[in-house]
Amino acid sequence: MTGLATTRAIRRYADEAIPEEALAQMLFAATRAPSGSNRQPFRFVVLRDSEVACAAKSLIGASARSMWAHKRRNDGYDTGSGTHHDSPKARMAASMEQYVATFERIPVLVLPILVRFREPYSFEGSSIYPACQNLLLAARALGYGGVLTGWHMTVEGELHELLQLPDNASIAATITLGRPQGAHGPVRRRPMSELVFEDVYGASARWAIDPPGTQFTQAGPPRTTDS
Amino acid sequence: MTGLATTRAIRRYADEAIPEEALAQMLFAATRAPSGSNRQPFRFVVLRDSEVACAAKSLIGASARSMWAHKRRNDGYDTGSGTHHDSPKARMAASMEQYVATFERIPVLVLPILVRFREPYSFEGSSIYPACQNLLLAARALGYGGVLTGWHMTVEGELHELLQLPDNASIAATITLGRPQGAHGPVRRRPMSELVFEDVYGASARWAIDPPGTQFTQAGPPRTTDS
Repeated sequence: MTGLATTRAIRRYADEAIPEEALAQMLFAATRAPSGSNRQPFRFVVLRDSEVACAAKSLIGASARSMWAHKRRNDGYDTGSGTHHDSPKARMAASMEQYVATFERIPVLVLPILVRFREPYSFEGSSIYPACQNLLLAARALGYGGVLTGWHMTVEGELHELLQLPDNASIAATITLGRPQGAHGPVRRRPMSELVFEDVYGASARWAIDPPGTQFTQAGPPRTTDS
Repeated sequence: MTGLATTRAIRRYADEAIPEEALAQMLFAATRAPSGSNRQPFRFVVLRDSEVACAAKSLIGASARSMWAHKRRNDGYDTGSGTHHDSPKARMAASMEQYVATFERIPVLVLPILVRFREPYSFEGSSIYPACQNLLLAARALGYGGVLTGWHMTVEGELHELLQLPDNASIAATITLGRPQGAHGPVRRRPMSELVFEDVYGASARWAIDPPGTQFTQAGPPRTTDS
């Protein structure tokens, strides 16, 4: 239960490989996940330090830098409190900046691949993202950490070719993994009263009370209108 | 780690309520899950035994029975080995039959709701299904069990009205929960060699070896052409 409540996004990694035994355990946990009709439409392409892996990291790294630059502008990271060196907003921006700038040195990427047996539809993620969460929880349990991203999105075509993906396969995420570096804060989410309802939408469940010591946050990226 | 490898779909429940303390722990685990930009677009509507909850259970139960009848025909559950009383296929069909026939007596339904901030897209499940997996893993850790389904799909309009969902909200799943009844077998999945690749798609990672004692299965629903 502790792992479920304390697994958080890790974006700074020690310059250290992940042993194959640990990788095997993480991927095993991923493959045990449920999927619709137990069809198991998930595959995982692991990228470490081969020539192909380095080429994929370069492609995704460049994509990450361009996507983050866009997001930084669009989500107003450099306005309002973002101009104050030590605000949460400025610290988040600095952390993201370092993450994408050193992307090629991330020890391991895992690309979860959805193999479609019918046309894309909104519900299909239910057969692959539980596996991704299992992977991240297993990483945490073994002393590693990571984060699920969409950094591949602008280079999906190039990756399809490089990684020899079949036509009916789609890259569902780019998961980055490594040994966490430095100190990491607690998981911050909205309080349960804003997220858990009983019977009708918006009616907080009276029994849904966060445990003592829970740390909260507002949802989402910084608001452009904040101070 | 054990929970990750042993959590499986539970479809038979004891006729026993889930205490609110346990529900709170499960929902807390769900709300701690990651989501894109930590936007937390997930909400959870919990349905127990109020008038609204019973009405929702009836709607979804009827939908489940009709969807299962359709699937039973389409996926050939009553052909080939399905005609042999004790085949895995016939046992799966019997278990599903009982599941949907007694749907209204399931102790708790949780409807994870995706609140959209942009048009639907294939990747959006990454912000809600990790939370669903956290919920199921927490249930398992507390001695409960459940399964993520799409039984609401044919009655989503009626449920929107009944549960007062906002226009930009979409029901991402119907999760059924309760105390497991009877004996439950192991998690069966494909071997890692079929699911975990290194560098290029289809190239099994040589270090991805299932732990001793792992039980395997073919993927998916029964094949209409099997014996």
